[in-house]
Amino acid sequence: MVIRSTTNEKVKTMRTLQTKKGRKQQGCMLLEGNKLLKEAIEAGYQARTIFVQEDAGNLYEQYIDFPETLLVSRSVIEAVCEVNTPQKIVAAVEFKEEVTNLSYDGQVYLALDQIQDPGNMGAILRCADAFGVSGVVIGAGCADLYAPKCLRSAMGSTFHLKVDFVESVAVALEEAKKNDLFVLVTDLRGEGEMKLSAQQKTILVIGNEGNGVSEEILQVADQRFRLPIPGRAESLNVAVCTGILLYEITQQIF
Amino acid sequence: MVIRSTTNEKVKTMRTLQTKKGRKQQGCMLLEGNKLLKEAIEAGYQARTIFVQEDAGNLYEQYIDFPETLLVSRSVIEAVCEVNTPQKIVAAVEFKEEVTNLSYDGQVYLALDQIQDPGNMGAILRCADAFGVSGVVIGAGCADLYAPKCLRSAMGSTFHLKVDFVESVAVALEEAKKNDLFVLVTDLRGEGEMKLSAQQKTILVIGNEGNGVSEEILQVADQRFRLPIPGRAESLNVAVCTGILLYEITQQIF
Repeated sequence: MVIRSTTNEKVKTMRTLQTKKGRKQQGCMLLEGNKLLKEAIEAGYQARTIFVQEDAGNLYEQYIDFPETLLVSRSVIEAVCEVNTPQKIVAAVEFKEEVTNLSYDGQVYLALDQIQDPGNMGAILRCADAFGVSGVVIGAGCADLYAPKCLRSAMGSTFHLKVDFVESVAVALEEAKKNDLFVLVTDLRGEGEMKLSAQQKTILVIGNEGNGVSEEILQVADQRFRLPIPGRAESLNVAVCTGILLYEITQQIF
Repeated sequence: MVIRSTTNEKVKTMRTLQTKKGRKQQGCMLLEGNKLLKEAIEAGYQARTIFVQEDAGNLYEQYIDFPETLLVSRSVIEAVCEVNTPQKIVAAVEFKEEVTNLSYDGQVYLALDQIQDPGNMGAILRCADAFGVSGVVIGAGCADLYAPKCLRSAMGSTFHLKVDFVESVAVALEEAKKNDLFVLVTDLRGEGEMKLSAQQKTILVIGNEGNGVSEEILQVADQRFRLPIPGRAESLNVAVCTGILLYEITQQIF
């Protein structure tokens, strides 16, 4: 049987995962495309419901043993996905709600304060994954890690990272300091030269796209750092900035 | 008089600038917000029509001497803008169609081949501006520089840069080579160490998000370079990658 009606209950349930409220109610995120779904399953996440487009028999067979794999029409796929030209598979996958307390035995960490745009948030996680960051502290005011746009832009990195969701980034940074991490905070009014030494355990703190980090975080900083910009642009995109700083930090301490 | 109807001819004309076809027909781009508009005017671009929301008298006065500045209702602003919560001013601004032949007397250049996403394209231009790139070669297959999303994500850098639109990036690179530029091409199968020397004039070539640069560009490369990624992500966002490479290049040659 193929589900063709976009008013079918299962379709409506899947579609609510586009909203934060729907994700919270169901404890699931919406994964669009086979690559993301495979990454999540490999990382131990549980797929609750999988929709496969009716002409993609090969994909259907891959997921036949899962709890609920359903064939649907193209119009159903289009109704539940955010993107204009969705792939032939979409799934409701349970996210982990427990808090991972970071042990701070790694070398490089990242903390995010009030990152607003889900596309930026995803690109930042992709950077963290690329540079082998040991854990990411995510403040309460950040974009939802499980928003479809964030998941797409993270390209699977969401499932590779240790993540700690915290109410207050400043409090988490105090904890990091007790574990001998150097708290390096990006700040447009900061210094232009990094004070890192080789092997120095470091946590890089990235703030909001427009406003930077909050005042209480600046108080905890070991260094406020401003990436020197020789040209005319006033600033860089926040994910680009994160990438350059993680690149520079890993160059300096390893 | 305040324009309130979204079917007004001037409103319809403004709205067509959201499409590439409309921009081409009118030779104008759509600038959302006062910051972008100011940057464009400062850079010598001509504003053809400016819509100011009726309750923004201060903004209206700023632009009273321009050829056509009109008061409109909020609903008109919302109808012509792409974003969900637009600012109180939007303008049709003429873009420059002539080709700037780059003279290659600067130190660092950028060439873009088949960059697909307008948000990435804008973030890349912002990087180029931030690192003081002397000119940008843009291949025919790239996203439209004047798409609203690209303009927003470039944050005004579009108007600071010398840009050369070319049919073939490979042909442009041959020309750059004749001018003693080192052609550094990003390529996932390339080497992990940059062969740049101090003061070496350089053109960095960035390819498509999924497929990289085309084969004929690889033929012209002085070096194929792959940014080493120590972690688990397979790659970085293309704008992040551009930022890191421009950062590294400017560190090495200056």
